[in-house]
Amino acid sequence: MNDIEIYGNIEKGQAFQKSLEKKNFLFSFVISYTATSEIPGITFAGSNPDLIQFTPPADAEFLHYGYCKSIDQIPMTPDGKPTPALLTKVALESASIPHVVINAGSKINPQLPYIQTELPFGKNITQGPGMDESAFLKAVDYGRIIGRTLASLTDCLVIGESIPGGTTTALAVMRGLGIDAKVSSSIPKNPVELKNRIVTNALKNISTDEPFAIASTLGDPMIPFVAGMISTATEVSRVILAGGTQMAAVLSFGRSLGFNTDKLAIGTTSYIVDDTTANFLEIIKSVADIPVLVVNPHLDKSNIDGLKAFANGFAKEGVGAGGSIIASMLKTGITSEKILELIEKEYSRIFTSQ
Amino acid sequence: MNDIEIYGNIEKGQAFQKSLEKKNFLFSFVISYTATSEIPGITFAGSNPDLIQFTPPADAEFLHYGYCKSIDQIPMTPDGKPTPALLTKVALESASIPHVVINAGSKINPQLPYIQTELPFGKNITQGPGMDESAFLKAVDYGRIIGRTLASLTDCLVIGESIPGGTTTALAVMRGLGIDAKVSSSIPKNPVELKNRIVTNALKNISTDEPFAIASTLGDPMIPFVAGMISTATEVSRVILAGGTQMAAVLSFGRSLGFNTDKLAIGTTSYIVDDTTANFLEIIKSVADIPVLVVNPHLDKSNIDGLKAFANGFAKEGVGAGGSIIASMLKTGITSEKILELIEKEYSRIFTSQ
Repeated sequence: MNDIEIYGNIEKGQAFQKSLEKKNFLFSFVISYTATSEIPGITFAGSNPDLIQFTPPADAEFLHYGYCKSIDQIPMTPDGKPTPALLTKVALESASIPHVVINAGSKINPQLPYIQTELPFGKNITQGPGMDESAFLKAVDYGRIIGRTLASLTDCLVIGESIPGGTTTALAVMRGLGIDAKVSSSIPKNPVELKNRIVTNALKNISTDEPFAIASTLGDPMIPFVAGMISTATEVSRVILAGGTQMAAVLSFGRSLGFNTDKLAIGTTSYIVDDTTANFLEIIKSVADIPVLVVNPHLDKSNIDGLKAFANGFAKEGVGAGGSIIASMLKTGITSEKILELIEKEYSRIFTSQ
Repeated sequence: MNDIEIYGNIEKGQAFQKSLEKKNFLFSFVISYTATSEIPGITFAGSNPDLIQFTPPADAEFLHYGYCKSIDQIPMTPDGKPTPALLTKVALESASIPHVVINAGSKINPQLPYIQTELPFGKNITQGPGMDESAFLKAVDYGRIIGRTLASLTDCLVIGESIPGGTTTALAVMRGLGIDAKVSSSIPKNPVELKNRIVTNALKNISTDEPFAIASTLGDPMIPFVAGMISTATEVSRVILAGGTQMAAVLSFGRSLGFNTDKLAIGTTSYIVDDTTANFLEIIKSVADIPVLVVNPHLDKSNIDGLKAFANGFAKEGVGAGGSIIASMLKTGITSEKILELIEKEYSRIFTSQ
């Protein structure tokens, strides 16, 4: 498994990897929404502001059907760089890993069967609390129910997410919880100043050190929901949190609910770990004694500009791309070279069929 | 496994049983609705007509929480005999079998996480087609998607249902498909005449021998949905259709979609097989060469009148009770005596806690 690097607790990471070789995986894709994403300049997850709300369901549809139903094209940046769901889809299919879509507060329902929670989407945290207390508690409860059920059906539950603007709410929650976090972004020139200004404003709404109050005021529905999931799922089987900054926020709040650190790992791409505008590994280390599994998809070696862009700082991660590639490697032993080949093939399929 | 009797294809039944001893099971509970249930006198699934629409979500909630959220009490007949979900809950818990709830056209959404299809509920088949063509095709498609996914997560997918008035639409579909069916009912004096009158009227709307047109005109959302499920699920793992008459209708229409008869069985209670007003085993034999696994829960031996009533013709089956008990027996080797003891304990818990 030379293609997977381990950071954080190395010993736990080796044991975690070893225990999952040739085992069964289930990918759960949590889609959500925060109106914080409507602040101009905050996200590139969607080619224009009106389309941003469609990105999570469209990612889900692309993963399932190979095309989208809610919008005409697959989600992409304004200049045509595709969603990281492309990487996820290839990884899951290469290893026949089943997936389920969970609607945890998406503004738009996906046009496929999905697990419904009836959670409201998150509000703009610069204008008031991101979530009402009752919705926040429901997110935790339903996360706990779904995490337990899904984990009981597999050796390893992989959890990915899609929530436009989610790195900003993640930053706010971590700062609110006293963690010195700098976060990644889907935009290459990470709009650090804008995010910091938003978060600083939102932090003014906080007059407590109670984690539930902080995370509901500054957060989005995905964070309490996935924190609920890992609190029960790690009692039952192993779990890979597939993502970057947002999963760091999940862990930060998740400490309040508890989780089994022997059954949990982060799985992500090298683009997150190498992002010098963020401090991903430091954050993880400060909140949980768990391994960080990192894969380099070598997209820089691709001849396709739209794929090279990932390596140059676009998207970096999302839709659980890194964790899905890691799951595929653990299940089948596939190499990153072979995965890259399949990714290029899928890229060509999309852009010749559309 | 002396507690499970095999009918139909005995040889296949023995192989089916043997292959599942000590294996993993997943119970999927399909909730649905047809306005046909609003015809007075047609169902006892709920203590009064306004409550009938709440029975499927309430069954789902009881299964999950041990109490209901959508209504105050657990579903029961007008004189207080409880829902067969009681048997299902005990069976699943006795063997730690996980479950998922699928909303395939329920009029009311359950208050728990569930798999959402956004299918409309079925219309009253005496007033026109039970389903629009597009909704019918979507039910088949989504059934196929969900069946494949769930089957990939277990050794055996058990499928149960709750749809008030569903035996009437089941009868109509089977008659429409040319099958000489007599069906069971949740009412001890099966209102045969009423059902026959309804079905005869509805059959007048049929001027085709095309199975899709027949099943959409005379049926309900559950039938095409579960037929879709078994068409894909039996490609992946074993499947137990947990139920009586309604599952016979699923098989009757399901022949049009195809399914693997080597991986499929019916699982039900002896109360269905012993019902002389119906001809369950003959129907199954005429539509599919599959085994029928039958369990006698020995509720006649109970000291509790509300449980004895099942053996005397109330409810008989529903919420996949028979198939769930069979799954528990296959997984753990538990006896029907022990199951009865647990059922009595659960009955006492409910009626002392409410």
